[in-house]
Amino acid sequence: MAPMTESLKYELLARDSATRARLGRVTTRHGAFDTPAFMPVGTQGTVKGILPDHIAATGSQIILGNTYHLMLRPGEKVVAELGDLHRFMSWPGPILTDSGGFQVFSLADINKISDDGVTFKSHIDGSTVHLTPQRSMEVQNALGADIIMMFDECPPGDAPREYQVEALERTLRWAKQCVEAHKRPGEQSLFGIVQGGVDLELRAKCAEELIKLDLPGYALGGLAVGEGFEGTRSVLNATTPLLPDHKPRYLMGVGFPRDIIEAVAAGVDMFDCTIPTRNGRNAYAFTAQGPIRLRNSQFTRDTTPIEVGCDCYACGAFSKGSIRHFFFAGEMLGPILVSLHNIRFYQRLMADVRRAIGEGTFENFRQTDPRCGLGPKVQIET
Amino acid sequence: MAPMTESLKYELLARDSATRARLGRVTTRHGAFDTPAFMPVGTQGTVKGILPDHIAATGSQIILGNTYHLMLRPGEKVVAELGDLHRFMSWPGPILTDSGGFQVFSLADINKISDDGVTFKSHIDGSTVHLTPQRSMEVQNALGADIIMMFDECPPGDAPREYQVEALERTLRWAKQCVEAHKRPGEQSLFGIVQGGVDLELRAKCAEELIKLDLPGYALGGLAVGEGFEGTRSVLNATTPLLPDHKPRYLMGVGFPRDIIEAVAAGVDMFDCTIPTRNGRNAYAFTAQGPIRLRNSQFTRDTTPIEVGCDCYACGAFSKGSIRHFFFAGEMLGPILVSLHNIRFYQRLMADVRRAIGEGTFENFRQTDPRCGLGPKVQIET
Repeated sequence: MAPMTESLKYELLARDSATRARLGRVTTRHGAFDTPAFMPVGTQGTVKGILPDHIAATGSQIILGNTYHLMLRPGEKVVAELGDLHRFMSWPGPILTDSGGFQVFSLADINKISDDGVTFKSHIDGSTVHLTPQRSMEVQNALGADIIMMFDECPPGDAPREYQVEALERTLRWAKQCVEAHKRPGEQSLFGIVQGGVDLELRAKCAEELIKLDLPGYALGGLAVGEGFEGTRSVLNATTPLLPDHKPRYLMGVGFPRDIIEAVAAGVDMFDCTIPTRNGRNAYAFTAQGPIRLRNSQFTRDTTPIEVGCDCYACGAFSKGSIRHFFFAGEMLGPILVSLHNIRFYQRLMADVRRAIGEGTFENFRQTDPRCGLGPKVQIET
Repeated sequence: MAPMTESLKYELLARDSATRARLGRVTTRHGAFDTPAFMPVGTQGTVKGILPDHIAATGSQIILGNTYHLMLRPGEKVVAELGDLHRFMSWPGPILTDSGGFQVFSLADINKISDDGVTFKSHIDGSTVHLTPQRSMEVQNALGADIIMMFDECPPGDAPREYQVEALERTLRWAKQCVEAHKRPGEQSLFGIVQGGVDLELRAKCAEELIKLDLPGYALGGLAVGEGFEGTRSVLNATTPLLPDHKPRYLMGVGFPRDIIEAVAAGVDMFDCTIPTRNGRNAYAFTAQGPIRLRNSQFTRDTTPIEVGCDCYACGAFSKGSIRHFFFAGEMLGPILVSLHNIRFYQRLMADVRRAIGEGTFENFRQTDPRCGLGPKVQIET
């Protein structure tokens, strides 16, 4: 492959006829990934408990790191001195970092939001930290991910409309500041983030303004934060068509299989979520027939794998009975194995989604494959 | 390979000329391992944090499981119903289980030691448990390891001689009861355990009596329990020559590289120890130049692997700086990576020991290789 002259290339390979779903491929300077793509989350430099060879074996082609956490510990300068985030995580393939905005607004003890940025207390040592569009770019430039995100404000879904308007204006100003502050546009692709809550007018305005910046890709932010499935769907269906057809689209922090399938049908290409790993650490395993809780006593003597037919390492090597024991004994292998299975479950789903789009059968797949209905309210087997 | 007609075959392949060190190979019904061999410890069905493919990649050929822990949780019947310990751990190669004796005497809240066994409180639920030679065999027969150990009493090293004599008499009676109770001698090899503290006369008497039972292998127990390096060496040098030349010899629970090398020189073939994994979980990494503590601030920006030239997964993939961060961030990958490195460190040492014995250079290796001097008192780099 000749050296890339741009930071990112998006190829649209096929369109579904019945929905807006699209099959594509994104190439970065650290390799390519097929879309629709799911990105496992490696918050603090690791996908919790899983060595990179096993991450790769799940079929993951791109992973996500969290700017907020890495900025506070070990600090982006340390990561850069250790060779950038790829070396730090031992992940030679594509990486995306978020802007820190979502974590600041959802996790941090915020002191002040002003036009230049956010002041908050570090959750690690209580020190005061100031995060601005410029600082977010500085940190993400140092981390060196292939795709980086603009710093945005994420107001609560139930904030009054006038606050939503004010936050959106700020987000649009910050977007321009991010573009100006971004020092490595030839290597790192800065994606815009469309905000606006469930207000379709605000969403449209935000999309319109961000498109003027001609960014290499666009994300939808501030969804799956309590607005409900119908709210998400309505924003997705109204906003995704406004985004450029020849650039990748990323729905941030989503979600359950049902949500991902819905967004794929609306034309979204990229996803990240902590659900497979966080639920995995809690002994919650995905299967096509619904989730199972591996601490349940019904599995004590169960010699079968988490999911018959699954090709993940956990299902190839261990019975449900063993894994249940590992959770009760406090052995790390419990969380590790169920996280591995869940990531592979998501990646098999994405591979099947891509195949269906390519074969023109996505609408049928979406209607008939039991995985496509898995959401938070599916009955837990007990 | 033709089906085995015996539970274990020991081949003595080479003898060192300057010491009693020997190169050999032990074949079990689940495969073979080269001796001198080091067995990582998988107490509760896992070598903590490490998936079996990575254990195999360290060069480990046989691993150890703890009867005491597995008997209490999930219970040996559950393990048997799940297909035996090999399937339970997903380790298709050779496995050794201890008898439970050492853990009962070192960990448990003992109520009573009598001629028929030991009564103690479970550390899991406080229930009263009775462990006897017959029960230890029943549990180990159910677990299904390739090598199983007789149930012995492990008196404290500083117990008065008359108690040592009494304990030894009991251990010898229990040995015979174990032989009688062992239901699967064609599949599982029962090893005898020579006790007797630092009293060479008692050790010799114990060895003599156990040899009469014509067991497939012999272990030295009750060493490295506080008697000091000189005490261990004196027992090793006096007792190992009394054991049959054509059977494997196992020094239980030992130890640091220095201790293993000393025992190899005395003619010991098998070792197990939790040091590589337990120390690894505490960020203590072995290197030929001495141990390093990965939490140390000197490693914050260190781009080099734990040990330059090491071929383990951790050293191939991660810098000391990353690993240090993982410990501070509470990420599982910290303990996992250092445990992996330490096991590989031990296995590289064992491979080099075997090569040296085979080439007739063991005495020189022992005198000149810096690893051979690594013990608990080596200065920690700070």
